[in-house]
Amino acid sequence: MSILERFASGDRVALAKIISFVEDRREGYENVLAQIYSGGKIAYRVGLTGPPGAGKSSLVNRIAVSLSDQGLRVGVIAVDPSSPFSGGALLGDRVRMQALYGRPNIFVRSMATRGSSGGLAASTKDVCVVLEGFGFDIILVETVGVGQIELDVASVCDSVVVVFVPESGDAIQAMKSGLMEIANIFCLNKSDRPGAERIKAELESILDVYKQVRATSRKRSLPEWETPVVPTVATNGTGIAELWAAVSQHRQYRSQADPAGYRADRARSDLVLSLLELAHIQLEQTLLDTQHLDRAVEQIICGQADPYTMARRLFESWRREH
Amino acid sequence: MSILERFASGDRVALAKIISFVEDRREGYENVLAQIYSGGKIAYRVGLTGPPGAGKSSLVNRIAVSLSDQGLRVGVIAVDPSSPFSGGALLGDRVRMQALYGRPNIFVRSMATRGSSGGLAASTKDVCVVLEGFGFDIILVETVGVGQIELDVASVCDSVVVVFVPESGDAIQAMKSGLMEIANIFCLNKSDRPGAERIKAELESILDVYKQVRATSRKRSLPEWETPVVPTVATNGTGIAELWAAVSQHRQYRSQADPAGYRADRARSDLVLSLLELAHIQLEQTLLDTQHLDRAVEQIICGQADPYTMARRLFESWRREH
Repeated sequence: MSILERFASGDRVALAKIISFVEDRREGYENVLAQIYSGGKIAYRVGLTGPPGAGKSSLVNRIAVSLSDQGLRVGVIAVDPSSPFSGGALLGDRVRMQALYGRPNIFVRSMATRGSSGGLAASTKDVCVVLEGFGFDIILVETVGVGQIELDVASVCDSVVVVFVPESGDAIQAMKSGLMEIANIFCLNKSDRPGAERIKAELESILDVYKQVRATSRKRSLPEWETPVVPTVATNGTGIAELWAAVSQHRQYRSQADPAGYRADRARSDLVLSLLELAHIQLEQTLLDTQHLDRAVEQIICGQADPYTMARRLFESWRREH
Repeated sequence: MSILERFASGDRVALAKIISFVEDRREGYENVLAQIYSGGKIAYRVGLTGPPGAGKSSLVNRIAVSLSDQGLRVGVIAVDPSSPFSGGALLGDRVRMQALYGRPNIFVRSMATRGSSGGLAASTKDVCVVLEGFGFDIILVETVGVGQIELDVASVCDSVVVVFVPESGDAIQAMKSGLMEIANIFCLNKSDRPGAERIKAELESILDVYKQVRATSRKRSLPEWETPVVPTVATNGTGIAELWAAVSQHRQYRSQADPAGYRADRARSDLVLSLLELAHIQLEQTLLDTQHLDRAVEQIICGQADPYTMARRLFESWRREH
């Protein structure tokens, strides 16, 4: 049996191998993805993001176990920033996620954040496609930290949960981190700690202002989605059902409000990510891997040229050559 | 007088206008940059990054005032994630930085993080070039949050200070955020709070292991830089002198260890950033702004094609056309 046949028959070892193959961008990975994509299977993709230490792994753990108990098949992608020690996934999270490994209808995969952020979004999306092809119903994408990576990775998800804790500081930090625009649901984890009520109220009042600003600045026929703030305590399971209910409501909202637009959005984002990654790789290979570049650097150091003129000159000559 | 002449004569209004011109990538911005770059003025660029709420703005404030008191000219770039309200810079930081605005030898500029992270690194670098051309001695680049943006922005700086607080959680979070590899100096701010000693010791022991790992994996003739952990209390100025002393030591280390390599590194990074941004803009304009894309999305939705095959097809036809 070929590896794709084993994949199609539900072999988890084949699944893991195909994910590695795709993640490492090995020769022919696009053909594998094209074949899997053409199967037409789709899962609901939920992103969970927020500051380090907010308890995202514990939340993902709880949600995955609860969905699995309901008979759903759950794929988990944990996007870890690279560590100089492990070269990727983290021991701490691994330990916390250990509980998931034993279950036949849960599959956990860590991804490192080496390389460009655009590339990470593209490969996260591709791992989603592989998991979808394998038959998972729900994909949970956990991203650590707050920054461009999270925004990019969030863009490949259908619903985005932004996780906070009472210690996250003033709610204004929520806006600072640029997460306000990507959050479909706010989760206030560790909500049994002091200050939880205050930060929830603050967030809700900010959301209220935000809603008013959008209402005046946009003309939309669709009713606006009202971003809820759901308190949880991941360590003891409090609020997990409510959190998932909010995700399900958002899913329903998306599919009812504009089903065609929803599908087009995903197809477009899949295509654009692939296209930009392809272009980026081609450009890097041909533009940056040459003696031209070394000579240009020499000229800049000698003061014979500046980087702006040299960049344009190199780009123009690349275009002529291809 | 032309705006560049006013810029050259030390007119701060002209400086602000040229920064906006460059940041907005208006027609001809590369010529302006090329002209400024050819003046050959260089400043020392120091990046300060770390999690939200670590007190980076207060630190930058203290450092800028202290350097200004020593007669140095200081440019400050605050990279803020976009907010839906202000469309960029943040009220809170603005207020805290207000103290700097009155001084003739300090110039503060906020930049929004809209757009791709690569683009942000490129435009931050370009604003550095403008500030250098204006005659600043030191440029402080403050980035909020932890993530790819910070890593990219750090890449345009000569020394990088990573700021922590005792509440940052276990020191292992330091590795999680991928900051270990870019930190030249660790600053433990709010070091009068409980847990400061413990997290400092933890960080130092991690740095020690890290150093050993690198010592065995690399062959280098240069002595390794030993990343210090400097405790500060930005609100009352404690440790600011020690923090700056550490930055100065790192500066000395860089220029003594490999002066030619240091200049080549900066020229290369300036060139590569410009080149990739140029290529990215050209590609986005020609690849993404067409009816081809819409038609490709249609075909994907209908199941007639997949995004991987379509991406390659669109890219190949773009190459043939140009």
